[in-house]
Amino acid sequence: MNQPVTARAHTNIALIKYWGKSDPELIIPQNSSLSLTLEPFYTDTTVTFSNQLTRDQVSIDGQQLTVAASQRVSQLLNLIRQQANQQNFAQVISINHVPTAAGLASSASGFAALAAAASKAAGLDLDRQALSRLARRGSGSATRSVYGGFVEWQKGHGDADSQAIPLQEKIDFDIQMIVIVLDPRPKKIASRAGMARVVATSPYYPAWPVAATKDLAAMKTAILKKDLNLIGQLAEANAMKMHATTLSATPPFTYFEPETLQAIDLIQGLRATGLSCYYTMDAGPNVKVICSAKETPAILARLRQHFPADHLLVAKPGPGIAYL
Amino acid sequence: MNQPVTARAHTNIALIKYWGKSDPELIIPQNSSLSLTLEPFYTDTTVTFSNQLTRDQVSIDGQQLTVAASQRVSQLLNLIRQQANQQNFAQVISINHVPTAAGLASSASGFAALAAAASKAAGLDLDRQALSRLARRGSGSATRSVYGGFVEWQKGHGDADSQAIPLQEKIDFDIQMIVIVLDPRPKKIASRAGMARVVATSPYYPAWPVAATKDLAAMKTAILKKDLNLIGQLAEANAMKMHATTLSATPPFTYFEPETLQAIDLIQGLRATGLSCYYTMDAGPNVKVICSAKETPAILARLRQHFPADHLLVAKPGPGIAYL
Repeated sequence: MNQPVTARAHTNIALIKYWGKSDPELIIPQNSSLSLTLEPFYTDTTVTFSNQLTRDQVSIDGQQLTVAASQRVSQLLNLIRQQANQQNFAQVISINHVPTAAGLASSASGFAALAAAASKAAGLDLDRQALSRLARRGSGSATRSVYGGFVEWQKGHGDADSQAIPLQEKIDFDIQMIVIVLDPRPKKIASRAGMARVVATSPYYPAWPVAATKDLAAMKTAILKKDLNLIGQLAEANAMKMHATTLSATPPFTYFEPETLQAIDLIQGLRATGLSCYYTMDAGPNVKVICSAKETPAILARLRQHFPADHLLVAKPGPGIAYL
Repeated sequence: MNQPVTARAHTNIALIKYWGKSDPELIIPQNSSLSLTLEPFYTDTTVTFSNQLTRDQVSIDGQQLTVAASQRVSQLLNLIRQQANQQNFAQVISINHVPTAAGLASSASGFAALAAAASKAAGLDLDRQALSRLARRGSGSATRSVYGGFVEWQKGHGDADSQAIPLQEKIDFDIQMIVIVLDPRPKKIASRAGMARVVATSPYYPAWPVAATKDLAAMKTAILKKDLNLIGQLAEANAMKMHATTLSATPPFTYFEPETLQAIDLIQGLRATGLSCYYTMDAGPNVKVICSAKETPAILARLRQHFPADHLLVAKPGPGIAYL
């Protein structure tokens, strides 16, 4: 039996969204994206390859997964076994450190931690960029969770160069997020299915990668300028362009819930009072507020008038993958 | 003093939306549109030209408008005076027959009634198509209110041929609407300003006229087939494509309110129970349900569990312009 290896990866929230694949098998995106890795939300995953096992055994948060449910995990393990010439099945124990029902138990941190732990446990010694490409095969957003701080996932041309690069692992200005947890119910349409429907049916989708590419360039400049307001404006506009594509799909759908619109209204109202706060949203109803640590107490005070305190999660920038 | 002339025009709801101008001065649209004229919502307008007046005097629902507020009315009157070689100012008395606070006091019925009453009072004898072109100069959607039933506004090439044609003035199958009045507050962004921002800034807008043109052709076929479900599906998808453009504008905006999403969810739920009901929305939060008269009682019964009865307005197809 081989040695167990444990890795920790943090989740990330895109400021310029990944939305749509050009190669669904290899998970090559249609556009490059840019994210902020978050400190308080992470996954610890321990992988042990063992000749005593007759199949991969995967548990998440203490729950043993069925063979069907662990299929995406086994597919990534298969890739690793191939590269490492590893014959054994693996035991995978994964713990998500995310407040219960936060709707943030993202596949980003999960597949990044799995890629790191499993590759090392299988005997591979991959550098960060190789880890990033490997994590990508599990889940697109996991590509970015290999690095901390601001991260760019460069779409590249194929498996060999579709990977993340660190833009600023240690961020040198005041920026963080407040996650407003609005709806712990399971997503109506998973992000994978949602983006596939959009790519297949929306007449607006062809303009998305073009717009996202422009937004990305502007966002990189805004980050270099440490311009929180510009970062926020660009993130808002980019997120809404992503959500616009769901309304233009056939049949149309939306990740907005009534509370989403209330949260957006509230953030716009706070901004009108002079606070620098902006919203972004992923393929679900939760709203993430982009703001400074300095103004977080004032923003939180106002948000608490509308949302339960335990649904407001402050998130500082977080680090990249680490072995424990 | 000339004779007073009174005309009645009904409002209309587009199944394929008018969204965006190619000529803001002449109100030439970027795409042809298709609407259903509604029976219960109409405007009665009386126009009298008189050499006793020193300026146009406009009252709406008993309220005398200021010179500034009546500017759009006077602009249309100027066009008519020019055509008719009419020297006098006009008294305009307009009464909207729309339930108070329904948010349906549309410029469609208002400018159509004004065009009809004022042109005749000025001594012109315009046919319906000429009236339609004239109404267009007041408000785009008024172009369609000249006719009853299903109406197509053919975008044409300019002032001379951008006009409505009747598709089915008397509809020979069972279709009507239920208007869900969600928010009587004034619009945050008027439709004219909203579409202008979209045309100027949305990277998705260039795909809208192309998509709307396809939707229009499909809708005309669905109407000929009397296929309520297909009409509904096409109307929903077209409306959401229009609303998608607002999210993709810079800065992004939306006409959705939290209650809008609740209404949409409810309609989708009713449909899942086997009822043929579909939604459409204009540049405001109200939701219009497309359904049959036969199923209206069952749909109303369910809607009344969520909305006050006086916010649910049943609307049969209505007629075109008439002189009273």
